[in-house]
Amino acid sequence: MSKFLTLKSADEIFEMLNFDPLPPETLPLDQALGRVLAEPFPASEDLPGFDRSTVDGFAVRARDVFGATEGLPAALEYLGECPMGDVPQLTVGPGQTARIWTGGMLPPGADGVVMLEYSRPAGDKLVELTRPAAPLENVISRGEDASCGEELLPSGRSLRPQDLGLLAALGQTEARVIRRPRAAIISSGDEVVPVTATPRPGQVRDINSHTLAALVRSAGGEARSFGLAPDHRDKLRAMVAEALDWADLVVMSGGSSAGQRDFTILVFGDLPGVEILAHGVAISPGKPLILARQGQKSLWGLPGHAAGALVCAEVFLRPLIKRLTGQTDPEVWRAGLTASLTRPVASAQGRRDYIRVSLAPPETPGGPLQATPILGKSGLISTLVLAEALVVCPENLEGLEAGQIVPLHLSL
Amino acid sequence: MSKFLTLKSADEIFEMLNFDPLPPETLPLDQALGRVLAEPFPASEDLPGFDRSTVDGFAVRARDVFGATEGLPAALEYLGECPMGDVPQLTVGPGQTARIWTGGMLPPGADGVVMLEYSRPAGDKLVELTRPAAPLENVISRGEDASCGEELLPSGRSLRPQDLGLLAALGQTEARVIRRPRAAIISSGDEVVPVTATPRPGQVRDINSHTLAALVRSAGGEARSFGLAPDHRDKLRAMVAEALDWADLVVMSGGSSAGQRDFTILVFGDLPGVEILAHGVAISPGKPLILARQGQKSLWGLPGHAAGALVCAEVFLRPLIKRLTGQTDPEVWRAGLTASLTRPVASAQGRRDYIRVSLAPPETPGGPLQATPILGKSGLISTLVLAEALVVCPENLEGLEAGQIVPLHLSL
Repeated sequence: MSKFLTLKSADEIFEMLNFDPLPPETLPLDQALGRVLAEPFPASEDLPGFDRSTVDGFAVRARDVFGATEGLPAALEYLGECPMGDVPQLTVGPGQTARIWTGGMLPPGADGVVMLEYSRPAGDKLVELTRPAAPLENVISRGEDASCGEELLPSGRSLRPQDLGLLAALGQTEARVIRRPRAAIISSGDEVVPVTATPRPGQVRDINSHTLAALVRSAGGEARSFGLAPDHRDKLRAMVAEALDWADLVVMSGGSSAGQRDFTILVFGDLPGVEILAHGVAISPGKPLILARQGQKSLWGLPGHAAGALVCAEVFLRPLIKRLTGQTDPEVWRAGLTASLTRPVASAQGRRDYIRVSLAPPETPGGPLQATPILGKSGLISTLVLAEALVVCPENLEGLEAGQIVPLHLSL
Repeated sequence: MSKFLTLKSADEIFEMLNFDPLPPETLPLDQALGRVLAEPFPASEDLPGFDRSTVDGFAVRARDVFGATEGLPAALEYLGECPMGDVPQLTVGPGQTARIWTGGMLPPGADGVVMLEYSRPAGDKLVELTRPAAPLENVISRGEDASCGEELLPSGRSLRPQDLGLLAALGQTEARVIRRPRAAIISSGDEVVPVTATPRPGQVRDINSHTLAALVRSAGGEARSFGLAPDHRDKLRAMVAEALDWADLVVMSGGSSAGQRDFTILVFGDLPGVEILAHGVAISPGKPLILARQGQKSLWGLPGHAAGALVCAEVFLRPLIKRLTGQTDPEVWRAGLTASLTRPVASAQGRRDYIRVSLAPPETPGGPLQATPILGKSGLISTLVLAEALVVCPENLEGLEAGQIVPLHLSL
């Protein structure tokens, strides 16, 4: 094994994330929020199934109230009430009207509704209407919301409240969604102790099990911690093999470089059918990244230090998890997220830097957000805690200037 | 009861949302993602607790390698290896060096680390280093990430992966967070049937129980459906009273206007200690909104039609839920979300319109996102399904012009 890494570019890693979406599963509607629809959903019937009034008022034939005003109302024969939740037993003929409620079914003969506010009783069997109604005014007609066969929900849609509402409206009690990607998290390092332990001098508590599991969950995956491993090739291999049985992706942190104590690359190589795709990526923080695959499963070696591990996961694992769920929403709004840098940042050519920034409101209304780079070494977790976003300094730049407008990467 | 609504402005409703944050609870760290920290968390110890190397290399006294180059290396006496996870038993004196690993504890005497790449063995007990190291180079010193007593996590912080990482680093296995707000959802209307039923003509399936519960969950609340109620004052009252026992907010949809079949306002008024704060709000969609309170609990009457109910919930319930969780993150990035309208939209003076828009990428790099208003009646749920954001047309405008830059409200 070489003691030097051969760095891939971030874009080369992105191209390697060509894994297939996971298989679908069926969930009750009330557990499907945020899950990704596995197949397009065409309307199975007209919605609404009948012409509905959108107001309390009087169902009319629109031509009977043309030109009606306060001073010159239309006087119509009152036929009675339309029932709620049932078919009206009356028919509105010329010069006639019927009382209707919001959501009620329009009676035969009527084609519009005048709001209650513009009505007044006029004797026993007459109603005066003081405003006109155009045909279909205050009415949602049959099939106007969705007509049978129309595809409103594409596959790949991450289900929002209104999407669930549409499914409910069409009588769906369940949704067919892509299974959540399963990520097995392993922390390694002789110096790492569980969060419950009191570290002796020279030891540190395991941060990565917690941050990486949380990141996986926030991206829509399921995370399970497979524990803490010492820097020992056989023990690590057994742990990774066990994890690979369950997981769609195995995420190991620590020991991902090419040194004497870095076993991750060896352990991945020990496993049957595993192909090493990358060892080293030209980003900061996060250089010692390993990506390997075994069929449709991926194996990740992330740096041991918490900031590098988390930034790598944010940059590479989040889009992989999105891809595994089949999510195709373009999230166009992200393209609109930019800010002005408040001070210059130096970078190195040939490397993509993920710069942690805090955000402040625009200095003038309509102006750009203000992004301030957070000082401190790239390995510090505190800099991530203080950050509200990341700013990318691309490979071909040696830095970013103060006042420059830069895209924001939000989820960190 | 008046048959006309007295409309409040949206801002007047926002001012009425002055409810106290809910009490705290304690959760295991791995369940605390996205939950809101109930109290500030000061670092309970220095992080790291000792000077750590951030690279594989050689621990040195920086003055010993000043000016070292490939051609003129610093030749140092090699003392041996620093152990991982333990205190080095050696001391680096003048002209001496020791092997150290990423994450290892710096040995006494050393104040910097030269990376392995810039070293070469030179005989039995000598190492040549070909680059200098400044003091503290490639070292994270004790307390540099967080010094004991420093407050990195303020109360009101919605916990992200890195925040959980910091808590783990400091030995916290649990987090003290605000309890989730509990929302009881009730749908009303004689014409409404459960999603499992086949509606007869004139009937529609219950959409709101599903959309409103999902919205509450997406805002960080806990939702429970209390079922479907007929338009019957006594039955509704019993249902709302039961819901109020459990809930922090009761969210009822349907019957919220001021007509003969609108019982919500009466039912709220029937309950002991309930004060009606608003009946009607000058927004579209969503005019017939009711807000009432009983102590620290709120009662909401939302319109029955699905689009109005969901927009009202998005506009008013989401910020209330955020407030009840004590969340204080300003989410400054939202101020940066703007778009250019692709066509004009008419509104009415005195009313705040929430216009559904779809989004397209900027026409030129760095230009604004393109927001296209979605056609269709405001009562249609399909328009919300097609929407990616809302655009607000404020009360003092009669419309928005094509090409106008407008803020985006994202979560719908």
